[in-house]
Amino acid sequence: MNFKVIKKDLHSAARICSLTTPHGRIDTPIFMPVGTQATVKAMTPEELCEIGTRIILANTYHLYIRPGHELVERMGGLHAFMHWDGPILTDSGGFQVFSLGDLRKISEDGVRFQSHLDGSTHFISPEGAIAIQEALGGDIIMCFDECPPYPADYDYVLRSAELTIRWARRCREAKRRDDQALFGIVQGGMHRDLRERSAGELCALGFDGYALGGLSVGEDKRLMYEIMGYCAPLLPQEKPRYVMGIGAPEDLIEGISSGFDMFDCVMPTRNARNGMLFTASGSINIKNAMYAEDNSPIDGECGCYVCRNYNRAYLRHLYRSGEILASRLNTWHNLNYYLSLMAAARSAIAEDRFTLFRQEFYAKREGVGTGG
Amino acid sequence: MNFKVIKKDLHSAARICSLTTPHGRIDTPIFMPVGTQATVKAMTPEELCEIGTRIILANTYHLYIRPGHELVERMGGLHAFMHWDGPILTDSGGFQVFSLGDLRKISEDGVRFQSHLDGSTHFISPEGAIAIQEALGGDIIMCFDECPPYPADYDYVLRSAELTIRWARRCREAKRRDDQALFGIVQGGMHRDLRERSAGELCALGFDGYALGGLSVGEDKRLMYEIMGYCAPLLPQEKPRYVMGIGAPEDLIEGISSGFDMFDCVMPTRNARNGMLFTASGSINIKNAMYAEDNSPIDGECGCYVCRNYNRAYLRHLYRSGEILASRLNTWHNLNYYLSLMAAARSAIAEDRFTLFRQEFYAKREGVGTGG
Repeated sequence: MNFKVIKKDLHSAARICSLTTPHGRIDTPIFMPVGTQATVKAMTPEELCEIGTRIILANTYHLYIRPGHELVERMGGLHAFMHWDGPILTDSGGFQVFSLGDLRKISEDGVRFQSHLDGSTHFISPEGAIAIQEALGGDIIMCFDECPPYPADYDYVLRSAELTIRWARRCREAKRRDDQALFGIVQGGMHRDLRERSAGELCALGFDGYALGGLSVGEDKRLMYEIMGYCAPLLPQEKPRYVMGIGAPEDLIEGISSGFDMFDCVMPTRNARNGMLFTASGSINIKNAMYAEDNSPIDGECGCYVCRNYNRAYLRHLYRSGEILASRLNTWHNLNYYLSLMAAARSAIAEDRFTLFRQEFYAKREGVGTGG
Repeated sequence: MNFKVIKKDLHSAARICSLTTPHGRIDTPIFMPVGTQATVKAMTPEELCEIGTRIILANTYHLYIRPGHELVERMGGLHAFMHWDGPILTDSGGFQVFSLGDLRKISEDGVRFQSHLDGSTHFISPEGAIAIQEALGGDIIMCFDECPPYPADYDYVLRSAELTIRWARRCREAKRRDDQALFGIVQGGMHRDLRERSAGELCALGFDGYALGGLSVGEDKRLMYEIMGYCAPLLPQEKPRYVMGIGAPEDLIEGISSGFDMFDCVMPTRNARNGMLFTASGSINIKNAMYAEDNSPIDGECGCYVCRNYNRAYLRHLYRSGEILASRLNTWHNLNYYLSLMAAARSAIAEDRFTLFRQEFYAKREGVGTGG
């Protein structure tokens, strides 16, 4: 993997970088649509390309459970299996296992957990998480980490962050394939000293990129922004920086502003399936009766396939009727919104007007719900 | 509407015709994908075009109930509302109302029924059915008919067929728009004399096309084929002939062989969503464990987008995971199968080898389940 900083914004920490993987080059800042089960819900790979997707994320936990990483490997790896020829990042499964709550038990060696599908018992160690990700064959793989709950007491978060560092070392040692980049994950909860310590120790180990984990777990947005703000400078300039699992459009803008390059979140796809659609002036709920005879597109500023060809009245009808096309068109538009926002951010940074771009982003939404 | 017989098969009643509507020309024999709620489930209009769809069917009952025909009319009619610029045929609502069972009561004047959505009471008369279809704005509209249950005693079917004729006369008189073609529907259950009488009286009234209703309601396939066989010659050569609501691929082949031109059925789309996929050698159930690591396409003879890019193992994974893409890809392939079968039938008729084509169709499926 080759990584280069192309341009730094003059007035913020925002930056444009290029990341070259075995499956192509990505310009950052970038949003990665989430393809949990080897498909970005409701979209084909061709459609993802059409709206500007350059890299997608797949979930190791889900693919390990079904259809199984060995099956995916025998089918030629994730790219061939799902007909996506661009870069793929796989998470480590740590966050999903954390989300299982009472169904998992953490020890020094790894995590014992029960499948959410059939209750069968499984065990994933850091070495196992790397082996699974090597079988899946993503371009970027992640260290196995523990994501502490929020709130959690200081001692728990301290022990958890230390465990995550020991696991990161084991992941680094377990890695066999040299065509995959391995990213480390900074944990440390909401505690600045633990984040600093965690970042320092990870950087000392040395990874191809660095991610911020454990955010968007229930904390206030201001706290999330503060953590992104002080964590970015702790990570090397010459490596990609990734905030995992966020977020709303404004969270991405703040992350970019702090100097982060990569983002992923289920928000655009999940909200789409629930009828929540993003526009430049905030989000709308297409279920709303006020759209019953509204012949305008979702967003007058948007030039996507959906906004060019369908109006709100029809989209409301599809949603109320439970039609598959509702999920398709809503997902298309929302992902297009996220990817266009990233493209606009890159242009703004390139032209040294990112600060103005950020101000305008908020000005358009003023007095409107923020789409969370 | 302009209708022309282009070519008659030398050895069967099969024929190629062209049907010109305000939204374009159709070559028959043709299959019409069903777009019940102003969308062919899981497909965009562009995708329908790509696989060769030239006309779709929409359901009057469903659109009357939701979002309402007046709303569709205010939105510019069905074509504009759903972003489909090709021909549309709307059914009359008769069959759906019949399907409501105890929720409907038939009288001379029309049918009183309760909505399957909210139990609200509604009344549709023949005049009402025409007014609704004029508001929807399809290119071809259908007379309001009564579809008798099966089995039903002779007297019931007789009275029902007579009622359908009286309603057809009222539909003909109620029609106001001159840019829509009106088709009459032959009823008469499984009784040849009633079918003959019904066809004769309908033809005496005079319609732009003629449909066979009341088939595929539980009768044996041989009986269905027999009825198609003796009904086609009762209908004028110089008008389009349409068998409503059938069927399996072999039913279409038999219908074409009898001299019918148009077909519609939910089978390809509904079966797709249930994992039943059509191939030249019969249908397969993609859920089956035998496909878990099958890296071949659904149908080696098929050149559709799905068969070019995805294998059975991945399609099985998508289906088992409840992914929207499963419904999309399965629907795409199944509709492509139906539309390609119709295109192949047209070629065969054009080249006077339809009988051979029909024999080969069955030979390929020998010893394989027939996909019902």
